[in-house]
Amino acid sequence: MRTVVWRSLSQSQQESILERPAIADGANITAAVSSVIEQVRQGGDSAVLALTEKFDRVRPDSIRVSSDEIDAASGRLSAKMKQALEQAYANISTFHKAQKPQPLKVETQPGVVCEQVTRPINKVGLYIPGGSAPLPSTVLMLGVPAQIAGCRKVVLCSPPPIADEILYVAKLCKIDEVYNIGGGQAVAAMAYGTESVAKVDKIFGPGNAYVTEAKRQVSNDFRGAAIDMPAGPSEVLVIADDSADPEFIAADLLSQAEHGPDSQVVLVTPSAVLADQVTEAVRNQLKDLSRAEIAEKALGSSLVIIADSLTQCVSISNYYGPEHLIVQTKNPRELLSLLDNAGSIFLGDWSPESVGDYASGTNHVLPTYGYTKTHSSLGLADFSKRMTVQELSKQGLELLAPTVVTMAEAEGLDAHKRAVTIRVEKLMQEQK
Amino acid sequence: MRTVVWRSLSQSQQESILERPAIADGANITAAVSSVIEQVRQGGDSAVLALTEKFDRVRPDSIRVSSDEIDAASGRLSAKMKQALEQAYANISTFHKAQKPQPLKVETQPGVVCEQVTRPINKVGLYIPGGSAPLPSTVLMLGVPAQIAGCRKVVLCSPPPIADEILYVAKLCKIDEVYNIGGGQAVAAMAYGTESVAKVDKIFGPGNAYVTEAKRQVSNDFRGAAIDMPAGPSEVLVIADDSADPEFIAADLLSQAEHGPDSQVVLVTPSAVLADQVTEAVRNQLKDLSRAEIAEKALGSSLVIIADSLTQCVSISNYYGPEHLIVQTKNPRELLSLLDNAGSIFLGDWSPESVGDYASGTNHVLPTYGYTKTHSSLGLADFSKRMTVQELSKQGLELLAPTVVTMAEAEGLDAHKRAVTIRVEKLMQEQK
Repeated sequence: MRTVVWRSLSQSQQESILERPAIADGANITAAVSSVIEQVRQGGDSAVLALTEKFDRVRPDSIRVSSDEIDAASGRLSAKMKQALEQAYANISTFHKAQKPQPLKVETQPGVVCEQVTRPINKVGLYIPGGSAPLPSTVLMLGVPAQIAGCRKVVLCSPPPIADEILYVAKLCKIDEVYNIGGGQAVAAMAYGTESVAKVDKIFGPGNAYVTEAKRQVSNDFRGAAIDMPAGPSEVLVIADDSADPEFIAADLLSQAEHGPDSQVVLVTPSAVLADQVTEAVRNQLKDLSRAEIAEKALGSSLVIIADSLTQCVSISNYYGPEHLIVQTKNPRELLSLLDNAGSIFLGDWSPESVGDYASGTNHVLPTYGYTKTHSSLGLADFSKRMTVQELSKQGLELLAPTVVTMAEAEGLDAHKRAVTIRVEKLMQEQK
Repeated sequence: MRTVVWRSLSQSQQESILERPAIADGANITAAVSSVIEQVRQGGDSAVLALTEKFDRVRPDSIRVSSDEIDAASGRLSAKMKQALEQAYANISTFHKAQKPQPLKVETQPGVVCEQVTRPINKVGLYIPGGSAPLPSTVLMLGVPAQIAGCRKVVLCSPPPIADEILYVAKLCKIDEVYNIGGGQAVAAMAYGTESVAKVDKIFGPGNAYVTEAKRQVSNDFRGAAIDMPAGPSEVLVIADDSADPEFIAADLLSQAEHGPDSQVVLVTPSAVLADQVTEAVRNQLKDLSRAEIAEKALGSSLVIIADSLTQCVSISNYYGPEHLIVQTKNPRELLSLLDNAGSIFLGDWSPESVGDYASGTNHVLPTYGYTKTHSSLGLADFSKRMTVQELSKQGLELLAPTVVTMAEAEGLDAHKRAVTIRVEKLMQEQK
């Protein structure tokens, strides 16, 4: 971990030190992914199976996971595991249910009623990455809001073999269409449909560079599918003062660093003493991690910034816009109203990032790579869409007519004007 | 207008008849736009001025419109025009203020408090097209929510010369940075910044194919800017039964058709008699429109569908997913809960689309081209972002710890687990 004193840097040094690393080489991935998408669009299920054999080195008996197989997963899991998943499910459900929008109806002027109504997105696809360890938590983060929003069809794709934990959570979330498909081929199958896989309207979920690129490509095609948000490497920024426990902070920094070698890890503190203590604690705690090698790589590009004050720490954080923001200061809540550009914020000594990753109730699908400046933490809103409604009474239209007519004239749109005047004339006839 | 009986079509005919026309030739536009973006990134203001001279055939004295010029616009407008714009401003403000989210705070389990907080997007850019007529209504639709959301910097670009109506609305919305820039060069200037134009986080607003492509390109670059939504030709679908006035419907269809030759216009009705009456009325009303030629082109690809029932009309509309949906039936509100996939809905005989285009209070920036299935009508939410917060008490963490530890073990993430156990161990020591 590299330690810098903020004040000693020029503005351009400050900006460059917080710049995200460019995401590696696009051209090869772009071409490989468009080929995969084209193969799936042309060949459907048989292309999906061939690609699965090529990339995942397995040929599943069937693309779809049967409901018997989903049911069987439960029997193989420990009671402790099921209880943990159910507790997480309950908390995430509680927080996402609270996000249900209130109906909105306003009379903007007499006789002019405007409303906002919400509808679930009909068909959604959830992508759950495979790899060395299963990610049942991601199924919760996507499956729970889809269920609460009321999406009519929820499809889940994950590279085979799919872990029991994932199947168990799918069942908790009442997802009955689970497919043995990973990578770009899963994204293509959900975006365009195959004989087995239903075409969906929107695709959610994290993945490697190929999955990310496939999501980008299908979202640029209006016949494809919308996507949740742009992706990037995971990040944490910790703001701490000398009231914080350096061992806690070290554990938090490492729990980000172990995600992957490209994880971004930043500590910002007004205390040079704490900075040293944390660096020391990180070194010690690193030793006995099973993923120490990964974490060490991530730490190579990580940063400890010594600032002048907590206020400056907040400015630095707002400028960087971290995915995860942990605040371990004496009065963390005092800073909340000043904090901006973060995906999820963890207040105080007893709120490590891993509680939000799994089970506090908040969503762990968050904007990263600076997208916190414009994008939201994933929530119920992402599984729904807002439509507006207006209903005018006769009197409402009469009263609003002069405004609409004047503006339509200014914009040179005759027919817009006439849609109003033709009605007003009829009203005047009625009133005679 | 082509009339078809829905029942007489095969399913594939039904699907193909409602298919949107492909948006013309991308390759040339893509290359031209990336060259414009590159020129602006390299050359800044001087490139912007050169491109403006090339495309808009004017060289403004200054890129920025001075506050004196903005003030002067007011003096040149009629009292009637100002009153209309102020009335529209008031209604749009009322409806968008009502969209302010309630603070959300939930204790998901004892000692685990989760919150959702909202922050404005800091810097937004509004693009207002030029062309034959000024579009002050679009300034209202973008400027009002930006103002209510509390965006700290609002930049407006429009091709010179900028109409007085646009400058007047900019002043109403307290937009003080107005620039004489149009087309792809405006999008590039706002996405990347120049000496004069501040870089923004998100760009809003409609435009021609070049503006649309520029928005797409900058939104695909993480150093660029986010955008409001994908664009496409404007559309209206009218559901009507034989209680409707054919002259009203004809006026509504024409007010969509006059937007542009690629406008999509659809009437769906269970009444063959009404279908004929509307077709006749459209023919008659078309004659004396100043934009008759444009409307006639749009009508060439427009459609009258005779359905079996109102229920089937609703299904057809939901399948098509129109930008604007007008319902002129005996009991329009009865249908509302069945309606899905629309941008904005106009209920009843006295709610023509043009009231929503200008002044009812709803936003006229709407998803089109089928994007209603996944995207929302523009609203306050698009000028803000949601962050989540969690704060656990000591007891909250102790209670949640087993769940987090079990899940971290399942996912093979040691450091995630330790961020919890290291805290729980400290708590146990404290309690000794």
